[in-house]
Amino acid sequence: MTLTLDQARSIIDHTRAKGREMALKPLSVVVLDAGGHVLAFEREDGAAPGRFAIAHGKAYGAVMLGMAGTAQMARAEQQAYFMAAVNGVYGGQVVPVPGGVLLRSEAGVVIGAVGVTGDTSDNDAEAAMAGIRATGLNGEA
Amino acid sequence: MTLTLDQARSIIDHTRAKGREMALKPLSVVVLDAGGHVLAFEREDGAAPGRFAIAHGKAYGAVMLGMAGTAQMARAEQQAYFMAAVNGVYGGQVVPVPGGVLLRSEAGVVIGAVGVTGDTSDNDAEAAMAGIRATGLNGEA
Amino acid sequence: MTLTLDQARSIIDHTRAKGREMALKPLSVVVLDAGGHVLAFEREDGAAPGRFAIAHGKAYGAVMLGMAGTAQMARAEQQAYFMAAVNGVYGGQVVPVPGGVLLRSEAGVVIGAVGVTGDTSDNDAEAAMAGIRATGLNGEA
Amino acid sequence: MTLTLDQARSIIDHTRAKGREMALKPLSVVVLDAGGHVLAFEREDGAAPGRFAIAHGKAYGAVMLGMAGTAQMARAEQQAYFMAAVNGVYGGQVVPVPGGVLLRSEAGVVIGAVGVTGDTSDNDAEAAMAGIRATGLNGEA
Repeated sequence: MTLTLDQARSIIDHTRAKGREMALKPLSVVVLDAGGHVLAFEREDGAAPGRFAIAHGKAYGAVMLGMAGTAQMARAEQQAYFMAAVNGVYGGQVVPVPGGVLLRSEAGVVIGAVGVTGDTSDNDAEAAMAGIRATGLNGEA
Repeated sequence: MTLTLDQARSIIDHTRAKGREMALKPLSVVVLDAGGHVLAFEREDGAAPGRFAIAHGKAYGAVMLGMAGTAQMARAEQQAYFMAAVNGVYGGQVVPVPGGVLLRSEAGVVIGAVGVTGDTSDNDAEAAMAGIRATGLNGEA
Repeated sequence: MTLTLDQARSIIDHTRAKGREMALKPLSVVVLDAGGHVLAFEREDGAAPGRFAIAHGKAYGAVMLGMAGTAQMARAEQQAYFMAAVNGVYGGQVVPVPGGVLLRSEAGVVIGAVGVTGDTSDNDAEAAMAGIRATGLNGEA
Repeated sequence: MTLTLDQARSIIDHTRAKGREMALKPLSVVVLDAGGHVLAFEREDGAAPGRFAIAHGKAYGAVMLGMAGTAQMARAEQQAYFMAAVNGVYGGQVVPVPGGVLLRSEAGVVIGAVGVTGDTSDNDAEAAMAGIRATGLNGEA
């Protein structure tokens, strides 16, 4: 199963809608495919200019490691040097905190990831999960 | 004048519509703000996975140099080593060909740039210009 | 609202004057625009040669994250691996300590940042705030 | 002889004044010390955001090679691969065109360099030379 641009757009739209419903700060949302490559991205007005890199880093680490943001954060807290080394091999592109959410097919295969940043990491993840569910896909935060 | 996400989305929508009208290959379209930071991006189904970097490189060089893709290509053809050096100082992120289009305010100030990739450079630029005009903004290809 | 070079020069002049008034070590002061790009910089005689990168790193992180140095330091103390990861995605250019001060418009929008280095981080920040106030702008340290 | 900040500021002021006298496009001017480290920089309103890197690249190559921009350009035209290799060892930070001007003491020792960008390379160099002369120093373009 290959993630489509229409699905990516739907995830972004519904993630942003959830952010407004929860009254979060301006969000930035990226969707990556199964290879960790960018399909779609939007940065809401008022967000800091560098938010693409943070959103991308959350989603990129999730795809490349096959591990969602919550699990990455747990690992970083247990073994900071391990996640630092992981970042070495991935060119510094991994941001290991909640808000990086894996997308899985019905069969459990990773088909991409969503990265959300702008509010607290937990709120970012909650908005992403809402966007994924509203698109009829399975997320793992 | 600050480019909004709604304007960026409109540019992308209309650029893609023009691509379909011209029967172009799948397009990837990025919109950057006046500081060269990503506002929005979409990659159409069927495009190669690495298209974000190409679209970004076309738009990024335009903003950073204040010079659109057509002018960058002319300079690269006259002084290849100069554009190579420019790419050095910008971390290799500049793709100096048409399809990188400056966005200017009524007063002529650069407010961002659009980067399109997927078909020929000239077709990419034509689609970008159509998307910009349909959004009521001024483009310089 | 766009920060002008005259404003940037005024911030630098008044920050340096405050440094002399406080009898601080030689200061280096950078002013970045809303996209994180350098508008103006001065390094006082006697400062170490590498001070541009430190001043820049304080201001750059502030703009890119929309978070001033004091808040960045707090986050770094709580989640060291997070700020390390942030530095990865920004190419190692973030120095998360006081002395990176956000510039905000009357409406609260970030219009740039000031980075000061040379004395203690707290003294650097105090000098920056004095320079910003004397220029009639709003700072967030 | 060590270049002072006051001399650097004077060079920048007089270079900019020359630019206005010649009706050049907005200029960006950097002054580096004898070690190739930034002493002072200013970017005039209306210049593209990425101009620091270009100005810096012109001056940096001049100091590091002990060769002004005109001589670097001649070498690049004769041996493009050589200047490309030079850029490899200097991390891509050299922009080998006029506008990078060496500063020499009375005894002929390199004490720093000036980098100017914004107009044609030749006009950039002319403005730099005027700024250097008005400061009572010797320039080599």
